[in-house]
Amino acid sequence: MVRRSAVGWLGMACAAMAAHAGPEISGEQRALEERFDAALQRSNLGEWMERLAARPHHVGSAQGRSNALFMAELFESWGYETRVEEFRVLFPTPKRRALTLLAPERFEARLEEPVLDAAASAGKLPGYNAYSPDGDVTGPLVYVNYGIPEDYEELARRGIDVAGRIVIARYGASWRGIKPKVAAEHGALGCILYSDPRDDGYFQGEVYPEGGYRPDVGVQRGSVADMPLYPGDPLTPFEGAVEGAARLQREDAPTLARIPVLPISHADALPLLQALGGPVAPEAWRGGLPLTYRIGPGPAEVRLQLEFDWSLAPAYDVIARLEGHEEPEQWVIRGNHHDAWVNGATDPVSGMVALMEEARAIATLTRDGWRPRRTLVYAAWDAEEPGLLGSTEWAETHAEELRAKAVVYVNSDSNSRGYLSAGGSHALEPLVWDAAREVQDPRLGVDVAARARGALAVFGAGSDRERALAGRTLPIAPLGSGSDYTPFLQHLGIASLNLGFGGEGDYGQYHSAYDTVDHHVRFMDPGHEYGVALARVAGRVVLRISEAELLPFRLEPLAEVIAGYAEEVDDLGKRMRAERELERRLRETGHRAAVVGPGEPGLLAPLPEPVPHLNLAPLQNAVEALIAAAAAFDAAAGGAGDLPRDARDDVNGFLMRLERSLGDEGGLPGRPWFRHHVYAPGFYTGYGVKTLPGVREAIEQRRWEEAESEVLKLSGLLSRLAGEAEQAAARLSDRD
Amino acid sequence: MVRRSAVGWLGMACAAMAAHAGPEISGEQRALEERFDAALQRSNLGEWMERLAARPHHVGSAQGRSNALFMAELFESWGYETRVEEFRVLFPTPKRRALTLLAPERFEARLEEPVLDAAASAGKLPGYNAYSPDGDVTGPLVYVNYGIPEDYEELARRGIDVAGRIVIARYGASWRGIKPKVAAEHGALGCILYSDPRDDGYFQGEVYPEGGYRPDVGVQRGSVADMPLYPGDPLTPFEGAVEGAARLQREDAPTLARIPVLPISHADALPLLQALGGPVAPEAWRGGLPLTYRIGPGPAEVRLQLEFDWSLAPAYDVIARLEGHEEPEQWVIRGNHHDAWVNGATDPVSGMVALMEEARAIATLTRDGWRPRRTLVYAAWDAEEPGLLGSTEWAETHAEELRAKAVVYVNSDSNSRGYLSAGGSHALEPLVWDAAREVQDPRLGVDVAARARGALAVFGAGSDRERALAGRTLPIAPLGSGSDYTPFLQHLGIASLNLGFGGEGDYGQYHSAYDTVDHHVRFMDPGHEYGVALARVAGRVVLRISEAELLPFRLEPLAEVIAGYAEEVDDLGKRMRAERELERRLRETGHRAAVVGPGEPGLLAPLPEPVPHLNLAPLQNAVEALIAAAAAFDAAAGGAGDLPRDARDDVNGFLMRLERSLGDEGGLPGRPWFRHHVYAPGFYTGYGVKTLPGVREAIEQRRWEEAESEVLKLSGLLSRLAGEAEQAAARLSDRD
Repeated sequence: MVRRSAVGWLGMACAAMAAHAGPEISGEQRALEERFDAALQRSNLGEWMERLAARPHHVGSAQGRSNALFMAELFESWGYETRVEEFRVLFPTPKRRALTLLAPERFEARLEEPVLDAAASAGKLPGYNAYSPDGDVTGPLVYVNYGIPEDYEELARRGIDVAGRIVIARYGASWRGIKPKVAAEHGALGCILYSDPRDDGYFQGEVYPEGGYRPDVGVQRGSVADMPLYPGDPLTPFEGAVEGAARLQREDAPTLARIPVLPISHADALPLLQALGGPVAPEAWRGGLPLTYRIGPGPAEVRLQLEFDWSLAPAYDVIARLEGHEEPEQWVIRGNHHDAWVNGATDPVSGMVALMEEARAIATLTRDGWRPRRTLVYAAWDAEEPGLLGSTEWAETHAEELRAKAVVYVNSDSNSRGYLSAGGSHALEPLVWDAAREVQDPRLGVDVAARARGALAVFGAGSDRERALAGRTLPIAPLGSGSDYTPFLQHLGIASLNLGFGGEGDYGQYHSAYDTVDHHVRFMDPGHEYGVALARVAGRVVLRISEAELLPFRLEPLAEVIAGYAEEVDDLGKRMRAERELERRLRETGHRAAVVGPGEPGLLAPLPEPVPHLNLAPLQNAVEALIAAAAAFDAAAGGAGDLPRDARDDVNGFLMRLERSLGDEGGLPGRPWFRHHVYAPGFYTGYGVKTLPGVREAIEQRRWEEAESEVLKLSGLLSRLAGEAEQAAARLSDRD
Repeated sequence: MVRRSAVGWLGMACAAMAAHAGPEISGEQRALEERFDAALQRSNLGEWMERLAARPHHVGSAQGRSNALFMAELFESWGYETRVEEFRVLFPTPKRRALTLLAPERFEARLEEPVLDAAASAGKLPGYNAYSPDGDVTGPLVYVNYGIPEDYEELARRGIDVAGRIVIARYGASWRGIKPKVAAEHGALGCILYSDPRDDGYFQGEVYPEGGYRPDVGVQRGSVADMPLYPGDPLTPFEGAVEGAARLQREDAPTLARIPVLPISHADALPLLQALGGPVAPEAWRGGLPLTYRIGPGPAEVRLQLEFDWSLAPAYDVIARLEGHEEPEQWVIRGNHHDAWVNGATDPVSGMVALMEEARAIATLTRDGWRPRRTLVYAAWDAEEPGLLGSTEWAETHAEELRAKAVVYVNSDSNSRGYLSAGGSHALEPLVWDAAREVQDPRLGVDVAARARGALAVFGAGSDRERALAGRTLPIAPLGSGSDYTPFLQHLGIASLNLGFGGEGDYGQYHSAYDTVDHHVRFMDPGHEYGVALARVAGRVVLRISEAELLPFRLEPLAEVIAGYAEEVDDLGKRMRAERELERRLRETGHRAAVVGPGEPGLLAPLPEPVPHLNLAPLQNAVEALIAAAAAFDAAAGGAGDLPRDARDDVNGFLMRLERSLGDEGGLPGRPWFRHHVYAPGFYTGYGVKTLPGVREAIEQRRWEEAESEVLKLSGLLSRLAGEAEQAAARLSDRD
């Protein structure tokens, strides 16, 4: 998984931002980090990548199991107490795939990715979407652009319906699982996904193997489960998929896709798109293929036949612990997945080997008798690709213990050259950038925080750019989903981070057979230099959280970012009201009717209902209280002097519960698995984050009563947190 | 010529706007216009188009001469006193054209446009750019996007130089003559222009003959003279190119292109672009061809060989007069060109036949004994395509008489279905939209002003949209160049308008062999309905100016639009200062240096000099005086009661001189032929207008002293005009 465009990397850097000092770093800590840096060996990353990416290693494959055991042995050899935990998860694999253009001419899609190295590809899964249902559907084809809700609004304005038809959507703009979900909501029979060359093919740069971008035959595999409902094994929501666990019947599993879905290359898509008639697609819908993009429906008629083996597969999580000597019951967890769609040199091995070298280097520090203050847990997750299964099932299995013991979860995934991107819990914002300032960029003679700041100053806009120029603390991005932090952050309420470098790799191999070691070392991270940089940044973050007497969390960045989100939600309502009012005026005045183009039907979606004014005052009051309490807490936390043990324990306990206090047992409306009320993957974006999701999505989807009750729920959480923060600040005044 | 994208049509509608009442229309006038409407016969447009577009009819062709004589006979038959005026103009035609890719592989460009009807195309000119020099140049190829100055700034940031090389630029974003001009300024040896499918080919819609857009083999012909210096015959600036006129030597003619230029199809461009190496082009530079756009230079190496026949050709202007009975020495001039690059059904015949039918219908009004109050002059210009030669040479030949007698010049050119677009002298703004409100759109049940308003309300933005919604007067656009109004408006200072419908045609045949009657009636204006609508609007404008006792000009729209331009010029300086300051900060802080991508040289153009604060106070004061005087004038002009003859003559005289008072004999810096100080084609945009061009271009090009002296010059003109307007207002108070 993982996001993958340069835009994404920069976009993540463009959130709100303020000036906050992180905790002081002691001389002792600095010396520890220097020894850590000195222990890192770049050559290990390459060696392990060759080993782990040698063959296809999806969940359930022999190579996947072998990789897990290989890593477990290594962790064990470095001194970690290591176990391999096994789960039994639903993982369908294709038995039959056929896509036929029946009219106006017959064309059989090849559905093949020619490989460059047959031995290295032996046993690879073909192009398919995991959790598509079996099916055999025939119908006229409709091009739906990215297949997100706005695209169907555009179709409605043109009077084009997809009911009883088969849609073809290009990858991009949302998580892929959204596309069949929205298509099914509109009555489509089937869904074809394809990789347009504009998005990650020749439009972006030279294609593999000459360059790094997707060749015409490249296919993006991937899960189409309804992950924004819940990730993990579709049959075991809320429960670990251990041997003998209670399982839903497949027909009752709500996250399985409703209609057959198949991903294809643009070589296979070209004849289909060429066969479409109907209106010319709007300019923003047109991709990079040499044709006139038309919407249809028809005259292209297609048949899609899919059949899967619905067996359970074993998933192997490697869990390696280094026990803390002072606070063994406080865990700093660090994870990356190890399963891939095919060879997965970049996704996930580039992040995995950085994590392994980080773990090895930390283990070397124990040779001098050093032991971490808190317990370190290094994890290599299986089955992330079909939908975060390895991490989710582990988190669900150990939920109670994790709620009691987990301090933080630090994730990584694919890594490449470029800019440090950091997302996660805003209480960790100063900590992340303080650590980043001490890591040099491998290519340019500046630290990696300076590069991130440069990107914001040069490519950012408005107040973000001004803040970057003014030298204030850089932002971290709120997290949606797409990698293994989701069960920790959004389900269990554990403070989380996602770290990685990117934006300068030529990332066109995503989820294809071309994500090979050759590709990675030529187009993503030559020499594994950014892999080492990732180990340096993540290792520092781990060590600083592990070793701090008082946890290095800060509340002001969190309070301020929530204040910003509350303003956005307010603006959202205002904008929707203004847009609706404008549309009403355009219709009443006849201006809409005066711009109907030749051959356009002039049909219009119904005018939406008026957008009422919502009472956001409780939220605004709670946010103000939180800002005041956060300022008091941070001032007290930054004070000098020793803190009595019991006060420190109380405050650390408060900070460990901090993220949990932003969620509740009931979770978000309609998706109780997602409990966090500040960060969630969008119900209609997937990877893309929705902040204050309960309130925001209720407004977006025009459920006004729900919006007001979500405001009250969120306000209650924030008010309670403000009260606890004040108490914690008072405890901190007990210093000597 | 003529602009040609939907964006252009809408863009023209997005200028400033206010609420102004035009003059009252008498019952007698309305009755006259109804008789005019009733006389219009749609079938004539189709018949004449078949006749005029039957064969290629470029300047100097047998068909061009035959068309002129045919039209002259018709005008004469309708009762116009008609002459054909002949000029002798420089019109090079190709003797040899060859373009060869020498490396890395050899490819000979075909340089052919296959025709669909050999008889109708007999004698057509091949694809070429008029006023390219002869030449035989060889060099590495560099892709320069649109080839406008900003593109060379981007190249400079990447350390890529075109000196000693051959550039390939896509059509679009500026007038084509700008491309070789800027390339030559940067030392290029030659210039290739091509039509990218993104701009008017398959990306936009189905290609000809199935659809209206440019097929892969379509070539855009056109002039590359340096028209922003002066239009017309390159050898006779300021003077009519009559038999025996003094002519410059070719080597002294400053508007001839400096380096060989050749236009090609994208079928011919594809192998050239595929052969380019070097960095991947920025996203905004990438077109619709199925390849990775790279900049070069090389390894593609090309040879361009061009040789022309530099003979003079005869140009035939048809001039048809209907003498005024009250004010024969006040002329209302109405023109359209008749020459084409090939068959030119749309460009220019669609506008020409609308003008002819308008003239015929007006002539029928004289059967009842009616005579126009002022003299009407209908003109069919030759040699517009190579650079407005027919109109310019006529205007220069008759300059003295025109300055004394011309009241207004109303132009049209290519016409298609869609929205009414009106540009020109802002004193005519209320008049135009008052007339438009009385013409029904042929396709939708609303008047053509309502359609234009709808477009602004639906597709416009910000305050323009609000104004459209609020029902205030619609704007007309300031004119740059691209059709025959230029010598009248910007050289002689005669109030001018340019009228036409467009935005809903599939306009991919521009200047190609595919601009045929078949194309026009299928994809531009089926049934010639918008041709008739153009005749209705333009005929009304002509009749209202011709018949008004007091000329129906208003000063407030002019004053307000100038005030808006003055603000823009102020903002321009501020924006340039802010951009320069930001760039300085990005460099000093090292942020620029922190975002150098892999493989990017990290070279930077030198930091520009600081942008000084300029004294715009004289301009602001003059604008305020003009606004006050304009309000006084319009109030007085709208008053009731009869005006004594001498007062009316004085005020009409003032209004006839109005546009002249916005110019001076010295003209613009470096281009004295362009005398108007409010409207001019941009020196580096060509067709695109620069308002307040003396001041604006001095600022844009960082000539600060010139900017301040231009401010003083312009302020003087505006102050004088304010004084004259006050006097005229006083004369108007002499009503009974």
